[in-house]
Amino acid sequence: MALQRWKLTIEYKGTRYAGWQRQEEGILSIQEDIEIAIQKFCGTFCRLFVAGRTDAGVHAHGQVAHFDLDYGDRPLDGYVIVKAVNAHLGIKDISILKAEKVSSDFHARYSAINKLYTYRILCRVGQPTFERDVTWWIRRDLDIDSMRKGAKFLLGQHDFTTFRAAECQAKSPIRTLDRLDIEDLPFSGIDGREIRFVVEARSFLHHQVRNMVGSLVQVGVGKWLPEDIQTALHAKDRKKGGITAPSTGLSLTRVDYAALFA
Amino acid sequence: MALQRWKLTIEYKGTRYAGWQRQEEGILSIQEDIEIAIQKFCGTFCRLFVAGRTDAGVHAHGQVAHFDLDYGDRPLDGYVIVKAVNAHLGIKDISILKAEKVSSDFHARYSAINKLYTYRILCRVGQPTFERDVTWWIRRDLDIDSMRKGAKFLLGQHDFTTFRAAECQAKSPIRTLDRLDIEDLPFSGIDGREIRFVVEARSFLHHQVRNMVGSLVQVGVGKWLPEDIQTALHAKDRKKGGITAPSTGLSLTRVDYAALFA
Repeated sequence: MALQRWKLTIEYKGTRYAGWQRQEEGILSIQEDIEIAIQKFCGTFCRLFVAGRTDAGVHAHGQVAHFDLDYGDRPLDGYVIVKAVNAHLGIKDISILKAEKVSSDFHARYSAINKLYTYRILCRVGQPTFERDVTWWIRRDLDIDSMRKGAKFLLGQHDFTTFRAAECQAKSPIRTLDRLDIEDLPFSGIDGREIRFVVEARSFLHHQVRNMVGSLVQVGVGKWLPEDIQTALHAKDRKKGGITAPSTGLSLTRVDYAALFA
Repeated sequence: MALQRWKLTIEYKGTRYAGWQRQEEGILSIQEDIEIAIQKFCGTFCRLFVAGRTDAGVHAHGQVAHFDLDYGDRPLDGYVIVKAVNAHLGIKDISILKAEKVSSDFHARYSAINKLYTYRILCRVGQPTFERDVTWWIRRDLDIDSMRKGAKFLLGQHDFTTFRAAECQAKSPIRTLDRLDIEDLPFSGIDGREIRFVVEARSFLHHQVRNMVGSLVQVGVGKWLPEDIQTALHAKDRKKGGITAPSTGLSLTRVDYAALFA
């Protein structure tokens, strides 16, 4: 018996799923669908360990998970795993992008040194068609300069209790936010634009990105001043924060590991 | 009575539609859905005239249509039309992006001086999730350099009979192709890429873009040499052309008009 550890890079559209994590029977999760496809491929159950569990409706362009596979003495190429698992997944809103053999001390969650999330907002009068499931549609323009001023208060190490879901299981509310860029993208050259939040940290609290975006949108519509972000942060009270932005706009875009594992 | 002519810029995802043009009762068309929404807004039926009828499954990011509206003496702003027609459309995979008052000699089809289509191909092992309805998924890489060489034979004025659908109603098979660029886009920085054909001409024959792309993909997979595109073109015979690329990848992205109408 020779266990091999495999790292998967995964894309999924979370719209029709209850989230990454396996739920009770009958409730669709991304984890379960991939575990079933892997079992169809190799004949045994292999548990998946994920970099970051995503909530219902949240997407991934570069989620990472690992599993251990006993494939006997036969040589196995990552390309074979990608092809086979995708074939067993079928049309499931999930796609395995890459499979790489890694050392047995690699762990999708504990070895991660950085995560990049993107949050997309579509500002225009007309409802989204192509981007309906992957943006938060706001039918007015937002003040990007003010949101950028507000975002600066969130950078660095803070107690993020104000932006943490009540059900968050993390032991500490302290996190270090390394990046919160707000990009302004023209939309097809026609009236309206996309506003894209690009957020990086080693780890996040539950709902942290969506709660930060929800508060920054309060600034964008002029209901809050940029400094109100700092006031909310210092209050360390979820009730002083803005709304939770909808899951549609959020995607786990990239997970980084030390070069040792690259 | 004061008829005003309005120009609409329209986005739609064509996946669930039989195409732009109105069909028999019960068959969904984009034209009918928008005409119904306009009628709900203004109370009378206004016929839409379109720049380019798109086929079943084909998308638009910048389709143009015009209609005449008798709104009495009340002043009417384009923004009001956009808001009202979109509200009546609801969640329909159609979105009105812009409404502009134009002179009565503007015609969405006959005044157009240029049309830009894009055709998207996704080359990678894993099935598309987000891009499933808007790309042609090809599970291998294509030779872009060879396709670019082949594409050059199609530029300029030619008899495009080889790339014309049997049911094409145009009087002449002569068209002038002003642009056929093949862009190479990395896909999320992960294995695989998007290949985007950007095609411009004053007008196109029925299925011309999809038939040209289908033949260029024969070059991309190595079944044809670049020069075989020229041979096919000179044959003036649809049977000498490659397959028709699927509708999913095609979008009418932009229609241009003389500055007079801009």
